[in-house]
Amino acid sequence: MGFWKSLFGSSNGASAQTLAPANGSIGTALSISSNGRGSKSAQSKITFSKDREIDLYELEELCDAVGWSRRPIRKVKKALKHSFIVVSMWEQRGSYNRLIGFSRATSDHTFNATIWDVVVHPDFQGQGLGKALMKQIIKELRREDISNITLFADPHVVNFYRDLGFMPDPEGIKGMFWYPNFR
Amino acid sequence: MGFWKSLFGSSNGASAQTLAPANGSIGTALSISSNGRGSKSAQSKITFSKDREIDLYELEELCDAVGWSRRPIRKVKKALKHSFIVVSMWEQRGSYNRLIGFSRATSDHTFNATIWDVVVHPDFQGQGLGKALMKQIIKELRREDISNITLFADPHVVNFYRDLGFMPDPEGIKGMFWYPNFR
Ligand SMILES: CC(C)(COP(=O)(O)OP(=O)(O)OC[C@H]1O[C@@H](n2cnc3c(N)ncnc32)[C@H](O)[C@@H]1OP(=O)(O)O)[C@@H](O)C(=O)NCCC(=O)NCCS
Ligand SMILES: CC(C)(COP(=O)(O)OP(=O)(O)OC[C@H]1O[C@@H](n2cnc3c(N)ncnc32)[C@H](O)[C@@H]1OP(=O)(O)O)[C@@H](O)C(=O)NCCC(=O)NCCS
Repeated sequence: MGFWKSLFGSSNGASAQTLAPANGSIGTALSISSNGRGSKSAQSKITFSKDREIDLYELEELCDAVGWSRRPIRKVKKALKHSFIVVSMWEQRGSYNRLIGFSRATSDHTFNATIWDVVVHPDFQGQGLGKALMKQIIKELRREDISNITLFADPHVVNFYRDLGFMPDPEGIKGMFWYPNFR
Repeated sequence: MGFWKSLFGSSNGASAQTLAPANGSIGTALSISSNGRGSKSAQSKITFSKDREIDLYELEELCDAVGWSRRPIRKVKKALKHSFIVVSMWEQRGSYNRLIGFSRATSDHTFNATIWDVVVHPDFQGQGLGKALMKQIIKELRREDISNITLFADPHVVNFYRDLGFMPDPEGIKGMFWYPNFR
């Protein structure tokens, strides 16, 4: 069990303490000495934000770090603008903020939401931060009264999402993707 | 093979003739004598529309007809407003228009779209109209340059979508739904 995990706890419900939203910040204030490689010794805390004015080059770097293929910045900008919700995760050390996690959801603002692009920087993986990030976006979607939260999980992360309460193929419902010229 | 089907054809690509969009109409003009129960003898044609100003009571009736549970009109209105695209299908006989099919998609307007609420009135099912409706919404999404078109299919319609080029669980990707208190 990672260091972060002991802080965030493993029970249901977002265990991260939520502050009053200000300037997009929905952040947790955890004053700790992180053991992430990216933050060796000094005091740092992890915060969350709903602000979608993210430095897109920093986001690209984050996605690069997990090996995702590059996407045109112009398109990423448009996608963020038209996402229902964007939740980013930051390591804050003094006045320095580093983007270490990201997730977003599309939605009809009412019934359904679909979560995309969940990522935690490799330096910070395996410490419960992905879980904390997911709990944060779920909490935000629930706050907006979304009843149906969905996603499409790569095979290697199905169990990660299952632990968070996501069920694969409930009642036989199948996730399907359209392929041009598939047949 | 149904009557409509012979008109719409069974090859790839929307076979419905698309008119220049005007007032939300993206309609096909097919002058035929339908064999749908809802249209017994007179000439009628099927049209498609992107106009989201749909009579919500008529939409509710359509969803009722296939046994879907009722949803508050206020919420349906909000969901339509915030859908990326709405494609409805109409039987037009003289000056009378009847809503006989519906589909919509949420999206980030860039990379991903997810299709929801695909329905054809039982009087008009089994004639290729569901296929035509799906081809229409796929065409519209492709026109908007969306690369990833997704949906969640009930078990009994997986083959319906498969025939349209949708693949279940491609490369092991799993559709997942979040359930509060699932564990
Ligand atoms: C998937 C990802 C977001 C998880 O973030 P993380 O911070 O490493 O995850 P956590 O430390 O919060 O893990 C929480 C739990 O999930 C488990 N878990 C984490 N990654 C997992 C994986 N890939 N497969 C299975 N379980 C996983 C952890 O073991 C932990 O379980 P535990 O509570 O029983 O100990 C992160 O690994 C990542 O960004 N991966 C690359 C991008 C990616 O694949 N995203 C998903 C696309 S669908
Ligand atoms: C699913 C639905 C939209 C299909 O519309 P439709 O007009 O009856 O479908 P079509 O006539 O265009 O059928 C096209 C093809 O799909 C097949 N098909 C239609 N419904 C099917 C079903 N339920 N299961 C498997 N195949 C189906 C048809 O046999 C036809 O195949 P063919 O080309 O090999 O002959 C319609 O039946 C409906 O509204 N059902 C109730 C609502 C629903 O379940 N929606 C989907 C929610 S995920």
